[in-house]
Amino acid sequence: MALARMLCVSGNDVQVWSALPAEVENLSATRVHPNLPGMKIPEELQFTKSIEEVCTGKDVLLFAVPSVFVRSTTAKARPYIPDGQILVDVAKGMEPDTLYTMTEVIADELNKEGGPKNAKLVALSGPTHAEEVALDMPTTIVSACPDEAAAEYVQDVFSNTCMRVYTNADIKGVELSGALKNVIALGVGISTGLGYGDNARAALITRGIAEIARLGVAMGCNIHTFAGLAGIGDLIVTATSMHSRNNRAGILIGKGKSPEQAVKEVGMVVEGINALPAAMELAAKYNVEMPIVQTVNAIVKEGMSASDALRTLMDRNRKNEMPQGYEKV
Amino acid sequence: MALARMLCVSGNDVQVWSALPAEVENLSATRVHPNLPGMKIPEELQFTKSIEEVCTGKDVLLFAVPSVFVRSTTAKARPYIPDGQILVDVAKGMEPDTLYTMTEVIADELNKEGGPKNAKLVALSGPTHAEEVALDMPTTIVSACPDEAAAEYVQDVFSNTCMRVYTNADIKGVELSGALKNVIALGVGISTGLGYGDNARAALITRGIAEIARLGVAMGCNIHTFAGLAGIGDLIVTATSMHSRNNRAGILIGKGKSPEQAVKEVGMVVEGINALPAAMELAAKYNVEMPIVQTVNAIVKEGMSASDALRTLMDRNRKNEMPQGYEKV
Repeated sequence: MALARMLCVSGNDVQVWSALPAEVENLSATRVHPNLPGMKIPEELQFTKSIEEVCTGKDVLLFAVPSVFVRSTTAKARPYIPDGQILVDVAKGMEPDTLYTMTEVIADELNKEGGPKNAKLVALSGPTHAEEVALDMPTTIVSACPDEAAAEYVQDVFSNTCMRVYTNADIKGVELSGALKNVIALGVGISTGLGYGDNARAALITRGIAEIARLGVAMGCNIHTFAGLAGIGDLIVTATSMHSRNNRAGILIGKGKSPEQAVKEVGMVVEGINALPAAMELAAKYNVEMPIVQTVNAIVKEGMSASDALRTLMDRNRKNEMPQGYEKV
Repeated sequence: MALARMLCVSGNDVQVWSALPAEVENLSATRVHPNLPGMKIPEELQFTKSIEEVCTGKDVLLFAVPSVFVRSTTAKARPYIPDGQILVDVAKGMEPDTLYTMTEVIADELNKEGGPKNAKLVALSGPTHAEEVALDMPTTIVSACPDEAAAEYVQDVFSNTCMRVYTNADIKGVELSGALKNVIALGVGISTGLGYGDNARAALITRGIAEIARLGVAMGCNIHTFAGLAGIGDLIVTATSMHSRNNRAGILIGKGKSPEQAVKEVGMVVEGINALPAAMELAAKYNVEMPIVQTVNAIVKEGMSASDALRTLMDRNRKNEMPQGYEKV
């Protein structure tokens, strides 16, 4: 809704669909979103309950559903999406079992019978708290697609005086960062809960993105993506904000609550916990050392005490900080 | 003093010298440092007023003087430093006029008549608030030296259960980051003072280290250093902490105070302002675009309004976020 309002006030015709008819009715009537109370939804912004209508005659289709509903929503939309359609995804996550990123899930569904030919899938990702986008606070974001023309088209559509959009061809690196950063943010929260300070937080953020980059390079991604806005940028905003559920859940675990208690107290989905199995599977599959991910997993899934686990992180073999195989670029 | 205490409690014989005899007397008598009130200086830690004594018979000499005194202190110590001595510098900065990093200043002074042969200069840098090191809070740091054996020797000396040390051969990149990060932190403070949020802060940190990296690569540094602990790691700790004078001065400027008023209110040296001329000179010399540095300079040195200046940052030509010439590594 924050992006829909932004696109509307910057001069685009915008139509919003939701799987929940009651949500469509409420938003359309009140012109306020319950999670973004300070944001006025413009009268020009249209709502529809018809997925066929929302998919028809649009320059861009924006997928902004929770990651667990990306596959089912794509399946519902499939018959109505035209050939060559530009599709933008903002959901972040990794599908369990397939280990697909969100645009890979969308592609997989669209490639089934009755789907469009040559849809262009773009991932839009970066340090973008919706609460701030809703209030026109300056924000940067990455439009990621191997098809340069599609990435630049989306860059043009989303650029305005409050939103600066960069392009990046490495969609896999962008989506991998978005899915795994929550595990690191959870680790940062645990460190804070243990009473560790700003030095430890900066270390976990920096070495955390280094291990995601190590995995990403093994998977064929561009290492520089992880130093970019959808990589370290998004991790910084997630791991230094009390708005982050992962950070808050981690703090509770660091203070001695069980992971189950922490999730209950936070009262919402903690993506970092949900992403742990995929992160561990990918590390094993690509034979990559991911000590921070493995430590968070030991605490959350294997019941290791947080202080013992973080202490083992400090006591590992002494290292050079350069990515292996990239000594001099 | 935080490092001296740490080295002492981890089993080393440590002797501390200061250019100020009164400081030596106070520290030796009270065993408390006025800026680190919670830290007890161990009885085993020795003090001396003799620069000859402190330079004699040591495995490692640690230079921890303010950057403006690095050259004069090195000149005083020069006659007493043995050939082949390992010297570690923790001062961060860039000398005006010469544009030398701190170890380059030390090397320049040692190479004068009467100086030692083959001194090994190591830069130690990273996200390391002294207030936290003083209290044994977990911290990471980089031991940087092109001489691998020297970097690893210093890694061994400084490693303990609270301090994890990584090596890096790229001393120039490590020192350049340490000198220029304060300019970006000042810009982050200005953004906060203008009322911008976490999205803008993460964007300035991420794109700020990207432009320091662009300069560093033009100067022959390794791009990965800037994604490391002495690069983005140190910038994160500086730009997200209210302990940072640069951050605080920037907030005052963003709220409409003049740079002179801001420096007066902060009441101490604001390194980001002092580093601006060197940063601007280096950008010009190496013909590198540094839009954030140039914007901070326009605000602080040319009287441009902060909101106008930050607005121009958002409105620049649309870009790809990859470093040029590193499209696929």
